[in-house]
Amino acid sequence: MAQSLAGPEIERLIQLLARVPGLGPRSARRATLHLMKKREELLAPLGEAMRIAAERIVTCETCGNLDTQSPCTLCHDQRRDESIIVVVESVADLWALERAGAIKARYHVLGGTLSPFDGIGPEDLSLPKLVDRIGGHVSGSTVREVILALNATVEGQTTAHYITDLLAPTGVKVTRLAHGVPVGGELDYLDEGTLSAALLSRTSL
Amino acid sequence: MAQSLAGPEIERLIQLLARVPGLGPRSARRATLHLMKKREELLAPLGEAMRIAAERIVTCETCGNLDTQSPCTLCHDQRRDESIIVVVESVADLWALERAGAIKARYHVLGGTLSPFDGIGPEDLSLPKLVDRIGGHVSGSTVREVILALNATVEGQTTAHYITDLLAPTGVKVTRLAHGVPVGGELDYLDEGTLSAALLSRTSL
Repeated sequence: MAQSLAGPEIERLIQLLARVPGLGPRSARRATLHLMKKREELLAPLGEAMRIAAERIVTCETCGNLDTQSPCTLCHDQRRDESIIVVVESVADLWALERAGAIKARYHVLGGTLSPFDGIGPEDLSLPKLVDRIGGHVSGSTVREVILALNATVEGQTTAHYITDLLAPTGVKVTRLAHGVPVGGELDYLDEGTLSAALLSRTSL
Repeated sequence: MAQSLAGPEIERLIQLLARVPGLGPRSARRATLHLMKKREELLAPLGEAMRIAAERIVTCETCGNLDTQSPCTLCHDQRRDESIIVVVESVADLWALERAGAIKARYHVLGGTLSPFDGIGPEDLSLPKLVDRIGGHVSGSTVREVILALNATVEGQTTAHYITDLLAPTGVKVTRLAHGVPVGGELDYLDEGTLSAALLSRTSL
């Protein structure tokens, strides 16, 4: 039906929008209609913003973050603690940690986690650069601590163990995120693993 | 936090995406991350598709539909029944009816419904053009029937009555969509108005 409904340009816009996470085929159609109505205020500026972003986004050569400059904004920021590197799986995790705003340090994006099942080995991750950074070959500074902010999944934990072994010769302090009850979480809904971890890591009041 | 996280180009992309229906501020951020990762396969083509659409989309001078040509694809289509005009409130409703594929006729997009509360009067709707089309001044053909496919809301029904009166002098047959039980709908969840309407319009088996 779509072919006879409107020009191929509109159909193509719908198909591309349907591939954006959060939009499916149906909401892409709805979104396209809205964009067509707001073509001056939204459609044209959005297209332009995408063109500019597509042109300028680069992967930071230091940490693997995505930005419009390399080294990225975070690697450039002199107010951040250079002696701490937070290792994350993806840029999405980096953004999530920045949203929390709990630490102002450097990051290192691995670009994945070890997953033999999916054929992802150490050579697919940004590990040599991490070792380099800790050795001070890249930044010239001395890194005191590496925080492994990886997912609490089998792959994430396997990767954490691998990195711990990899960094052992450098003598750098390696830590990981605490396990425990999520803030606002109800015990009744938590799995046994989390509850056991929260009990083991209990803190004094 | 967003300003220090990435360049202003990315922040602008997030803000514009957040205004797309179906995406909020949070999913716009997630969508942007995905687009940044797929900048060759998705971000750049999507930006280009939006630029082209923004440039080419026009309002059909005959029916008010949005398309990349005027008269639009539907007004051009010679296989459609020219003697029936389906009157809809918006292009979204036109698309919904086309999805159903129940009728291959012409459309007329009003661009709204009468709503004194919101200050929308007859002069804000595409009514003179509708009268013209029925009179045959525009298309040169004779319209036999006008189907009012308006929402079953107070505004939609008010508008339907207004158009019925407006078209009375032309002698054209004016019909409206049937009320009844939605296909797949359960009686238990339906309002009294719909049930009464469905009973009144019951059909023989």
